[in-house]
Amino acid sequence: MSDNENKLWCQNKRQNCVVQPLLTDLYQITMAYAYWKSEKMNDYAVFDLFFRKNPFQGEFTIFAGLEECIKFLEKFHYSSSDIKYLKSTMPSSIDERFFEYLKDLTPKDVTIYAVEEGSVVFPRIPLLRVEGPLIMVQLLETTLLTLVNYASLMATNAARFRMAAGKNITLLEFGLRRAQGPDGGLSASKYSYIGGFDGTSNVLAGKLYNIPVGGTHAHSYITSFITLDDLREKTLAHKETGKVYDLLELAYKHRNSIAADIGALVSEASNGELAALISYAIAFPQRFLALVDTYDVERSGLLNFCAVALALNDLGYKAIGIRLDSGDLAYQSNFARDLFERIGIKYNIPWFGKLTICASNDINEETILSLNEQNHKIDCFGIGTHLVTCQRQPALGCVYKMVEINDQPRIKISHDVSKISIPGKKVAFRLYGADGCALIDLLQRSTEEIPQVKHKVLCRHPFQESKRAYVIPTRVEPLHKVYWKNGKLCQPLLTLQEIRNKVQESLRTLRNDHKRNLNPTPYKVAVSDDLYNFIHDLWLQHAPIGELS
Amino acid sequence: MSDNENKLWCQNKRQNCVVQPLLTDLYQITMAYAYWKSEKMNDYAVFDLFFRKNPFQGEFTIFAGLEECIKFLEKFHYSSSDIKYLKSTMPSSIDERFFEYLKDLTPKDVTIYAVEEGSVVFPRIPLLRVEGPLIMVQLLETTLLTLVNYASLMATNAARFRMAAGKNITLLEFGLRRAQGPDGGLSASKYSYIGGFDGTSNVLAGKLYNIPVGGTHAHSYITSFITLDDLREKTLAHKETGKVYDLLELAYKHRNSIAADIGALVSEASNGELAALISYAIAFPQRFLALVDTYDVERSGLLNFCAVALALNDLGYKAIGIRLDSGDLAYQSNFARDLFERIGIKYNIPWFGKLTICASNDINEETILSLNEQNHKIDCFGIGTHLVTCQRQPALGCVYKMVEINDQPRIKISHDVSKISIPGKKVAFRLYGADGCALIDLLQRSTEEIPQVKHKVLCRHPFQESKRAYVIPTRVEPLHKVYWKNGKLCQPLLTLQEIRNKVQESLRTLRNDHKRNLNPTPYKVAVSDDLYNFIHDLWLQHAPIGELS
Repeated sequence: MSDNENKLWCQNKRQNCVVQPLLTDLYQITMAYAYWKSEKMNDYAVFDLFFRKNPFQGEFTIFAGLEECIKFLEKFHYSSSDIKYLKSTMPSSIDERFFEYLKDLTPKDVTIYAVEEGSVVFPRIPLLRVEGPLIMVQLLETTLLTLVNYASLMATNAARFRMAAGKNITLLEFGLRRAQGPDGGLSASKYSYIGGFDGTSNVLAGKLYNIPVGGTHAHSYITSFITLDDLREKTLAHKETGKVYDLLELAYKHRNSIAADIGALVSEASNGELAALISYAIAFPQRFLALVDTYDVERSGLLNFCAVALALNDLGYKAIGIRLDSGDLAYQSNFARDLFERIGIKYNIPWFGKLTICASNDINEETILSLNEQNHKIDCFGIGTHLVTCQRQPALGCVYKMVEINDQPRIKISHDVSKISIPGKKVAFRLYGADGCALIDLLQRSTEEIPQVKHKVLCRHPFQESKRAYVIPTRVEPLHKVYWKNGKLCQPLLTLQEIRNKVQESLRTLRNDHKRNLNPTPYKVAVSDDLYNFIHDLWLQHAPIGELS
Repeated sequence: MSDNENKLWCQNKRQNCVVQPLLTDLYQITMAYAYWKSEKMNDYAVFDLFFRKNPFQGEFTIFAGLEECIKFLEKFHYSSSDIKYLKSTMPSSIDERFFEYLKDLTPKDVTIYAVEEGSVVFPRIPLLRVEGPLIMVQLLETTLLTLVNYASLMATNAARFRMAAGKNITLLEFGLRRAQGPDGGLSASKYSYIGGFDGTSNVLAGKLYNIPVGGTHAHSYITSFITLDDLREKTLAHKETGKVYDLLELAYKHRNSIAADIGALVSEASNGELAALISYAIAFPQRFLALVDTYDVERSGLLNFCAVALALNDLGYKAIGIRLDSGDLAYQSNFARDLFERIGIKYNIPWFGKLTICASNDINEETILSLNEQNHKIDCFGIGTHLVTCQRQPALGCVYKMVEINDQPRIKISHDVSKISIPGKKVAFRLYGADGCALIDLLQRSTEEIPQVKHKVLCRHPFQESKRAYVIPTRVEPLHKVYWKNGKLCQPLLTLQEIRNKVQESLRTLRNDHKRNLNPTPYKVAVSDDLYNFIHDLWLQHAPIGELS
């Protein structure tokens, strides 16, 4: 890629270029034509974008992807080549004027209300409410869903890993090679950072989104050194004095003297591994973090690592730590921690006991919870496949449903009650208790009065008549803000860092029993009494009376 | 996006711009520095890219992604902004000359052997063998894995859906909104087409890859019409005579006369739905395919659809068919087929009985197999979530292992035998039987003689001593070709269409018992006697002797 092209890319830092109006399902365009043809294109429509079920058998979701939605709107425009392609694809009977119409079409008359990016959200609450001319609002569907679905799923997954690991553990995303292609990998890095990860191994994500990047070396680095003869450069200058020493000689000496501490035999340790670690230490004397499981953690890896770390210490450098990529991580991390502490005491090097222990072998949320129970001594997890593919549930399933057209409410009836959509233009509030925790989310019709602090609010289950509760909120938070109106952004967008902070802040207002991994308590999403009656009147109107014969 | 930008995009039609050298894990770059620093960068290394287990509990995999790997190599170059970013990220102690070195680094001395894209492949067979200067070969790892992993997983998943559906069913990919973001969606469209799908709903994929696109309308189209008054345009010109008729009037008349054939009451059918279908028919008189499950398939949807289809027939147009998106698809498709056939006979319209029936509700491989058992009458499936997320196994797990360095073989030892890598530079052959079916894949050392047709070849299990077989092949196919050498492509790449054909051709050589959904027979991947001994000698050399105490 030339620098010019690269520049173009960097200009679009926050958004992938493939996010353009044709990144949609064909039926949006055929519908658009049919609306245009039947002169319905300017009917005023209201659509809700929401999901029906929290992912990962959990009881919360993190909303993400809003910024990319807005960037998409800002650039929405059918190019000449788009129009040319559409002409070639659609039936030749299409009225030529439709394409002229498309050329000038922009979302300038669309209004979008949205929940703040990074917020905890729940089923049925519209993440976006999109209103405006039917044709335009319909044309946005697929792209908005694409941008919100994976972003929110990924941020939620990352937030769950964060909760499982606790706040003091470093979490790095290592999933690029297992993601859904190049951009799947970039999205994974971005949204796992938002969800609470500390960084990624993906260098391009680091460059594009200004996310911290991390990583050291692979097993192949170790195995590329076969004997000590492969070590062409053996010297390193002392950090303070600048005097040059033979690092191999120093490490060799240490290896002999600490073998007994580890309970290993020098003769069993790999010299290829020692050579690799020395060469790596020479390259990164201040960032020495070594993979120690290529041959045998206890008989070789830890012995070689400690020897090199002690040699570095002789020259004024502090090693960073080790990475474990196989085997029993709880046992190995305890073994390593204990060893580091003993060596720290024996050689009077206080930081030695605190060396970082990283782990990275096919880790999922349950692995972390299980490692916690086994009192692991790991400081940092590198997580790939399970994080980026969201193995436990690889799609969120957001939908985009018409709830009103030309001021007439629309309801989707289904035999499956969970699939019934809540009709009409709605607003949502989060009601908080005296302890600052969120009590319930409340959907109201947009025409109703806003719930008042310290006043009794009747909250009803949207479909079950008998489930009702009075709530007296200490704080009432409106969940939606207008983000897009008159063709422009009308609300400052949060930076990546602010969204990341918002996630943790928002999660803190949620009671622990809603967040726990096992059998979490469902958080309640209610409707007002007015909205309840409105839904049920419409439902009865539209549901056919069955007949048994 | 301006047309200029778009042009840039189209120039890169076959490859997403984010595929660039920084789309990698940071540890590749830190390793590169350490190799450079220790003067090992030009050590001659051989890496194999392979997977250990077929996905989806199946016994075969489709190899895909090769073309994107080659395009990546062709453009491989660190831009100034890449170098600037790396400088800002890596420790300040890094020798400045390393960045100069990176600036000029290209894969010109790398040689890549690969299996042909679209081939059926099996565990342990190198999909790519990458040789050349250690530093460069290592720097390619993550990107090559990213490009092959999801592409192959997706193509395999699509091929499985194709086998489940049979060759006469139209399969459309509908997954954009549930994919891993924008490019995840594009990759899904491309590789499901390669795997045997007939098209996609993703318009941008259609434009970029020249894949057929399909789609009609959503439920929201139907619900945007509330009564017949919403129908502003009701007329359509006769296809042959050009005479203008009132389509509503004609449809209304037909609805009254066929209600009894369906066993429905006109009074129960939705007039909003009728209005929607008429408007859609006016927009697409030659491509009328209607969603019939918005209200009630039997009481409303089919009645309205048939009324409009018959009205279109009066004006010389042939309707295409219906789409079902909920409920019991086997029952409904049979109900619809039976109805279409009865109406076809009654009104003497032969094509009516053959109207297309599409289905699209959360379909996976098992759903199709179950629908087959229930003798469904569906002609076309639209498949989204389960296809693009590969729900049953969302990652393939290809790995990239060093097998030789400076002519010395490298073996990765593991307690888990399936994780032991097969050392050394290898070539692979597929041996075919007299019936044209593939019998076994055979890995040999690159120095061995090629197996001969009609000569006995001893094939051994790579790790189990007693598992051996003599094979007398009728045909011997070398599996690898050189694709990249001296800085350029040296083998014509197949077009998308050719790769798609290759998949089916390659699958045809595989016995059915290897391909079946339930308990498929594993296809054998063997090693030559020479390679067997080579592996086991090395294994014994490297495996430490355990000690029990």
